[in-house]
Amino acid sequence: MKVFFILTIFPEIIRTYTSYGIIKQAIKKGMAQVHPLDLRNYAEKGEVDDKAFGGVPGMVLKPEPVFKAYDQLCKDSGKPFVIVPQPWGKIFDQKLAEELKEKDRILIICGRYEGIDERVKEITDLEVSVGDFVLSGGELPALMITEAVIRLIPGAVSEPESLRKDSFSGRWLGYPVYTKPREFRGMKVPEVLLSGNHRLIEQWCLFQSIKKTLDHRPDLIPEDLTDLELSMIDAIKKGLSFDEWIKKCSSKISS
Amino acid sequence: MKVFFILTIFPEIIRTYTSYGIIKQAIKKGMAQVHPLDLRNYAEKGEVDDKAFGGVPGMVLKPEPVFKAYDQLCKDSGKPFVIVPQPWGKIFDQKLAEELKEKDRILIICGRYEGIDERVKEITDLEVSVGDFVLSGGELPALMITEAVIRLIPGAVSEPESLRKDSFSGRWLGYPVYTKPREFRGMKVPEVLLSGNHRLIEQWCLFQSIKKTLDHRPDLIPEDLTDLELSMIDAIKKGLSFDEWIKKCSSKISS
Repeated sequence: MKVFFILTIFPEIIRTYTSYGIIKQAIKKGMAQVHPLDLRNYAEKGEVDDKAFGGVPGMVLKPEPVFKAYDQLCKDSGKPFVIVPQPWGKIFDQKLAEELKEKDRILIICGRYEGIDERVKEITDLEVSVGDFVLSGGELPALMITEAVIRLIPGAVSEPESLRKDSFSGRWLGYPVYTKPREFRGMKVPEVLLSGNHRLIEQWCLFQSIKKTLDHRPDLIPEDLTDLELSMIDAIKKGLSFDEWIKKCSSKISS
Repeated sequence: MKVFFILTIFPEIIRTYTSYGIIKQAIKKGMAQVHPLDLRNYAEKGEVDDKAFGGVPGMVLKPEPVFKAYDQLCKDSGKPFVIVPQPWGKIFDQKLAEELKEKDRILIICGRYEGIDERVKEITDLEVSVGDFVLSGGELPALMITEAVIRLIPGAVSEPESLRKDSFSGRWLGYPVYTKPREFRGMKVPEVLLSGNHRLIEQWCLFQSIKKTLDHRPDLIPEDLTDLELSMIDAIKKGLSFDEWIKKCSSKISS
């Protein structure tokens, strides 16, 4: 059982998001809990923020309510692993999600306004960033971290296959997917996907995944390439299509 | 007036998030609109997804409802700029947010399940990624993009200063902030912030921002450094504190 506590001044945002999709199902299956904690409940007279010292513009979340919430959690069920979304934090990626999967109880403290009082660092285990852009609070990053980690719990995503073939969790970015109708506004589903030839389809998916990775994120190409992958990379770099690659392979075998 | 349409099977998530904070205020001030569009309303019998072709595991969002929603928008008020969050998309950052600020009407199409039918690419202007990790849908990325862009509308963030000094919108990452009490659990607010000396405080903030950037994201150091910045970088690299740097500077001036 993985337990998340999300300390925020907007618990409703957390409550709503976790009422849908994968997180809702994981909660229902008893695999995870996500508890929004209302920062105001830990603040004297509900005052969670105050002016920054030094004439610095903007409001800052006060340290006391954050420490009070943290102390309460420690007292109730032991020290949680504390994450604070911060623009300068460690970049969140699938590898970090895998690491966080090992933590049983995670507290995510969401900043708002200009920031959080620096002294909260005292109880922070990890500052995490989801990217180089400015947001108004930590709620969206907190939900992303929660979802990415919960997805990794065995059984949380109903089809284990879905999990395995996702971008970033496999070796390559995802391949294009199609559903009905077979033809839509003149655009047809690739023939191979309708062929029923599973080996060919698997090769097509791999070819497209490799092509997508080469086109968009060559930095993600793995180092330990198989012969099949090398052959596809070679073909893609020469501008060959999947059909042309297949033809070339079969002519090689027959020759 | 900036208008966002977010096409999703979970419009409630969008509705709740946009009822709080900066987005809510921007909407109230008439600077922005955020319209959640329920994909189910555009689907025959509400069926938004179907099995992927080719025996590929997972469900795929069908093309028709997406095109129907898009056509309706085009008919009602002209072609919007269409963004689809995808793991292989262009990395979202503050520069991209600035670019998107120039678009008056943006439609963000949120994928779910295994993905969206590839033919939706036909109407896609930009695929965007918020990072190298796996999520279950495009809603969180869509809200991040929306918030980051709305924050850039002049007047959306109440204190223009708050905007200017944020990480990624200025030259350096943010500096530490403190609020009352002056001492909390033995941890004191730095003296300089209580000094009332505004020039000194500004230098302290810059020093801390530079230190944070050097420590966490040296890749973000700007190229066109001022003499003041160079002097601080030099001091930080030598392990000097702000007080030590100040002393060194004044001894230089007096000598």
